[in-house]
Amino acid sequence: MNKYIIAIDLGGTNLKIGLLDLNNKIRRKSVFNTRKYSGKNGLIRAIKTVVEIIIKEQGLHKRDILGLGIGVPGPVDSLKGIVHFFPNIPGWKEVKLASILKSELRLPVFLDNDAKMMTRAEYALGSGQGYRNILCITLGTGVGGGIIINGELYRGLDNAAGELGHLPINEDGPHCNCGGKACLEAYVGNSRIMKNAEKLFKRRISLEELSLRARKNDRLALGIWKDVGKKLGVALTAVVNTLNLDAIVIGGGVAHAGNILFDPIRETIHQRAMKVQARRVKVLRAKLVNDAGLIGAALMVKEGLKK
Amino acid sequence: MNKYIIAIDLGGTNLKIGLLDLNNKIRRKSVFNTRKYSGKNGLIRAIKTVVEIIIKEQGLHKRDILGLGIGVPGPVDSLKGIVHFFPNIPGWKEVKLASILKSELRLPVFLDNDAKMMTRAEYALGSGQGYRNILCITLGTGVGGGIIINGELYRGLDNAAGELGHLPINEDGPHCNCGGKACLEAYVGNSRIMKNAEKLFKRRISLEELSLRARKNDRLALGIWKDVGKKLGVALTAVVNTLNLDAIVIGGGVAHAGNILFDPIRETIHQRAMKVQARRVKVLRAKLVNDAGLIGAALMVKEGLKK
Repeated sequence: MNKYIIAIDLGGTNLKIGLLDLNNKIRRKSVFNTRKYSGKNGLIRAIKTVVEIIIKEQGLHKRDILGLGIGVPGPVDSLKGIVHFFPNIPGWKEVKLASILKSELRLPVFLDNDAKMMTRAEYALGSGQGYRNILCITLGTGVGGGIIINGELYRGLDNAAGELGHLPINEDGPHCNCGGKACLEAYVGNSRIMKNAEKLFKRRISLEELSLRARKNDRLALGIWKDVGKKLGVALTAVVNTLNLDAIVIGGGVAHAGNILFDPIRETIHQRAMKVQARRVKVLRAKLVNDAGLIGAALMVKEGLKK
Repeated sequence: MNKYIIAIDLGGTNLKIGLLDLNNKIRRKSVFNTRKYSGKNGLIRAIKTVVEIIIKEQGLHKRDILGLGIGVPGPVDSLKGIVHFFPNIPGWKEVKLASILKSELRLPVFLDNDAKMMTRAEYALGSGQGYRNILCITLGTGVGGGIIINGELYRGLDNAAGELGHLPINEDGPHCNCGGKACLEAYVGNSRIMKNAEKLFKRRISLEELSLRARKNDRLALGIWKDVGKKLGVALTAVVNTLNLDAIVIGGGVAHAGNILFDPIRETIHQRAMKVQARRVKVLRAKLVNDAGLIGAALMVKEGLKK
């Protein structure tokens, strides 16, 4: 009998639940609007219900499921399976999510932060394959990141490593939600990019339109992406010189802008990083895109069960 | 019969040669002026001569020496024992220093960069003892660094990790010797600090005097150290948020300024780094100071012989 893994990617906007086989192929995927569920308990109940439906629908039993992996949008204690809080979903504070789901579903449950899911997935099966020391970053409302050192996910003692969004790129600058100042995220988070665009275009403009306009050589739109790319490039220069990385994998909504964004990133690193480090590092677009969260969660379950 | 290690700390100013026992105690130490020796060959000859004198003087034989470790002030290929170049000593380019010394002295020779020597020493026997993920930085003409991740020296594929001096702290700023812009070193390297001080005091002033004046509450001198501390703090915030470090160990000449410098560093990290990371990290003064290079070189020999 084949075995399966349940993977969950909880985001501020979408809740994705998938069934994956042991080759990391997604057999079934459901996507819900996270905001539809009122509060923490509503969300947990929804997860439980959907997981049970998926198992039944596929003619499976609990014993066919090796475990459940869940990636969440905020800081966690991955060993104890505790969510510290979510910057963009209210009502969560020090929630023992892994043990709640475990007792509700009677399955082994593994929990980690979403940027670490993406990092695992891209490293094992995406653009990061074959490299040894990499940084993955996701560009969205927030700027998250994960680091692989010598082929292993590097966490730091508080599981808080990889917070590239909070690398300061200037001595002084705008205040950031984290309490810091001049953090990368305070310049290139989605909402900041859209605010800058609104000022220039005198109306609200989506990131998709901004990319489209840039591709059609709109000077204003190109200028915005160039500036975002330069700022990312300065932050990445810091990491490249410090860690002598082999590769940087960039994903998340904003990465869809493509070369309009990647060209100024590469150019800035090339101009500013030390020669040896600049020559070494590849700047790559994430490959697994929307499925990285689910694939990473499944990989986490397999890894967790081995220990 | 007891065994010993020869350790060499080659700097732009001083050449230190020491004899250490297997408990990492320095039994004998000689310090020379690096500039006294004309060119690469003169320096290599001097090293050979001094090493042979030390061995003879102590009534030892080559067979009592386990090996020779040498730390050098520039980028190296530590596996092949090749010096790429020295930023502050002319005439060295792709020199196979380890194999030259090995054939001259008929001893096993291990070579690495000086910041990595200090990092090894402080981690094993200095202020970094008992921590798991640390950054060591040396403040001098250049700003060098080394990183310990999960208890091991982290090099990166080109042995170029740890270049904290070349972390940009602003999007734009002064040009740096490395070819980059707004690098930490371009603001807080010794010569830059002295230049700033000269402007304020309208005369040349040594770093020692600058520290002394600050300790006596001289407003101008305090202002300079505060600014240096803030700039270091911004760069360290970047690394603390990225690596969730347990400790940062700061050494090198400028570190002698003491709390006048360490207070603004700690304050900046406290204000700007994310809460979890800021709470975790200890900012410590290096303990082994002038002997870190020799001790680190001896540790490298012991480690190298084990492999």
